Amino acid sequence: MPEPIKSSSLPWPYVSPGIPDELFDQLPGIPMTKRETRLLLLSQLRLQEDTTLWDIGAGTGTIPVEAGRLCRHGHIVAIERDDEVANLIRTNCDRFGVTNVTVIQGSAPECLAELTTPPHRVCLEGGRSVRDILRQVWKYLLPQGRVVATATSLEHLYAISETFSELQARNVEVVQSVINRLETRGNNQVFTAVDPIFILSGDKYS
Amino acid sequence: MPEPIKSSSLPWPYVSPGIPDELFDQLPGIPMTKRETRLLLLSQLRLQEDTTLWDIGAGTGTIPVEAGRLCRHGHIVAIERDDEVANLIRTNCDRFGVTNVTVIQGSAPECLAELTTPPHRVCLEGGRSVRDILRQVWKYLLPQGRVVATATSLEHLYAISETFSELQARNVEVVQSVINRLETRGNNQVFTAVDPIFILSGDKYS
Amino acid sequence: MPEPIKSSSLPWPYVSPGIPDELFDQLPGIPMTKRETRLLLLSQLRLQEDTTLWDIGAGTGTIPVEAGRLCRHGHIVAIERDDEVANLIRTNCDRFGVTNVTVIQGSAPECLAELTTPPHRVCLEGGRSVRDILRQVWKYLLPQGRVVATATSLEHLYAISETFSELQARNVEVVQSVINRLETRGNNQVFTAVDPIFILSGDKYS
Amino acid sequence: MPEPIKSSSLPWPYVSPGIPDELFDQLPGIPMTKRETRLLLLSQLRLQEDTTLWDIGAGTGTIPVEAGRLCRHGHIVAIERDDEVANLIRTNCDRFGVTNVTVIQGSAPECLAELTTPPHRVCLEGGRSVRDILRQVWKYLLPQGRVVATATSLEHLYAISETFSELQARNVEVVQSVINRLETRGNNQVFTAVDPIFILSGDKYS
Repeated sequence: MPEPIKSSSLPWPYVSPGIPDELFDQLPGIPMTKRETRLLLLSQLRLQEDTTLWDIGAGTGTIPVEAGRLCRHGHIVAIERDDEVANLIRTNCDRFGVTNVTVIQGSAPECLAELTTPPHRVCLEGGRSVRDILRQVWKYLLPQGRVVATATSLEHLYAISETFSELQARNVEVVQSVINRLETRGNNQVFTAVDPIFILSGDKYS
Repeated sequence: MPEPIKSSSLPWPYVSPGIPDELFDQLPGIPMTKRETRLLLLSQLRLQEDTTLWDIGAGTGTIPVEAGRLCRHGHIVAIERDDEVANLIRTNCDRFGVTNVTVIQGSAPECLAELTTPPHRVCLEGGRSVRDILRQVWKYLLPQGRVVATATSLEHLYAISETFSELQARNVEVVQSVINRLETRGNNQVFTAVDPIFILSGDKYS
Repeated sequence: MPEPIKSSSLPWPYVSPGIPDELFDQLPGIPMTKRETRLLLLSQLRLQEDTTLWDIGAGTGTIPVEAGRLCRHGHIVAIERDDEVANLIRTNCDRFGVTNVTVIQGSAPECLAELTTPPHRVCLEGGRSVRDILRQVWKYLLPQGRVVATATSLEHLYAISETFSELQARNVEVVQSVINRLETRGNNQVFTAVDPIFILSGDKYS
Repeated sequence: MPEPIKSSSLPWPYVSPGIPDELFDQLPGIPMTKRETRLLLLSQLRLQEDTTLWDIGAGTGTIPVEAGRLCRHGHIVAIERDDEVANLIRTNCDRFGVTNVTVIQGSAPECLAELTTPPHRVCLEGGRSVRDILRQVWKYLLPQGRVVATATSLEHLYAISETFSELQARNVEVVQSVINRLETRGNNQVFTAVDPIFILSGDKYS
């Protein structure tokens, strides 16, 4: 007879990704990749146990936390411009017991030159100049590497799609996530929409 | 310097869930839980390494395969009425090197009485009488257990929601997945919709 | 050679429905049927030039305004519990030059007994007891009449659907509107979601 | 006491737009603008009673039929490359008693030079070279005119958006329609998705 689910000192004792949004420490105005979008991103990243992942524009740090848990022997480099937000990412890693994330406070693409380990995977969640960042990232990306990027605006959707073409990325995929949640408002369960987001992926061959 | 992503004899060497639909063996007319919906289901199931999961109405077997990979020391029981479909699930487990799945050919809720190990988690993907199955499943479910069910029709959405109320399930959540994919048609990338699906979850406390 | 589009003293000189939301007078906290949803509602109402329409829970009055414009020789009765909101509806009718709307300040279903003209069509946009209102409305509805109702919560979706069954409504249709708009935020055009809404329609035969 | 809704010899006796898809004559493989998308298109076209509208790539003819009904004193020019499809449009106009539609069998943008009446409004529903057509259309468009275009692919979404910028179109709007319908399958009502479509609008000022 199996035991009931074990309690744990950690706030999220599960191996399946998708930590509820409200379990993360948050700062007002700092973007957070919502649970449903995060699941699609992690899936498109195609992680292995020992993957080296760069996460650029890491915001609240939900991707570093979840990727750090999946890649037990891997290494996550989270790049974030803002000092206070960089600390938020560290706080969230501590909260979920994640120890294989390095937070770099710096501005992409300039700060990428200082990173010593080239990545298998890059997650591009934002940044002022998405074209430049994507072009630079592509140089550092290992063969058979993969970039997954999010776009919430038409401009970013274009920019990423065009830059993937320019870089001759292979297997380019675009998925749009349009999730509705039923949320409790008083006595009712009201349908609310999560703002739609596009997720673009592309592979590097050589 | 890290090595490039390793090749593998398995068709899916990654630890992040979300195996592409086309990598599964399929039979015409047999339902398959699409990748994007599967990610939401796995996340709502909140799996641990040693979870015992019952998957009722397992269809193509995508949930047993992905859950079997996440729960390394766990056990997945896939229940499927149809003989040929039960074999399809076995084929897909073999294909992805998953060895901790037992396929039971039988009809829920009757066949549940024969199962010797009560579950921590139940995934309910279909079935003629969803109310009866849910009521029976609840009896076998371990304390702190959790049921996740999908609904593609208004009738099933009602039935599951009402039965959760009747059973006094806690933390009931409903999410609707409305995914659009950009698919290649000739020279164009055309937006296509994945049919919307509702995912309902509820916890048992004692 | 045709003349360019004529200017007009009215803020909306067009015959096609779908007045932009921001052209209506609004009060904080008072619900407004958004343009995209309004189009679906008006279409499902199947209006004729001389239709008598009851609009129950009329809120900001967007449906009375648009229906009043389409039914030139018809009559729209807008029912609204709140005094201030009833005045808002009158203001919006004046603003768009609509003269065939009567605003009744009262509470459905009680106030329906005072209405002297039975309706061809009923639009049900809210109300505390949607089941009771729907049952009462059905009694007053003319033969070959039609009710169109909106639901933003699972409870209302159930209640309306079940009451249509109970009343043996015919040709019941359910449509869910999930609209995304591209809105300007600074220099970017960001995709934002309009909260999803269900629109249910049913016909009375005798 | 009002009379019940009148019967009519026409298949659609209503003034509100949104004729059900199945009432149109159809040819296999010929695109049809679905009801929910059509409502958004007609609304964005901002039609007046005497509007001259060009509909380019008219397909099954649903827009000419509905616009012809709304613009009683206007004129709709439907342009369609294929001979058989041009006849389909004529059949559908006859079916709904619409007499103010002229069907031109020809290929845009070349055939536009032969049209003698410049348009207030242009609806662009397809075409091999959407950039060229949009540039040519803009020359013929009357001051204060408006173009509404649909895109089902990322390429068309880009092409239209960029050409609107190049032409300095004003008040550019993008709406994405993601409609789910509940359809009867056996004894169940199953949620099905209408493929998402983008609708872009832009105004010409001088």
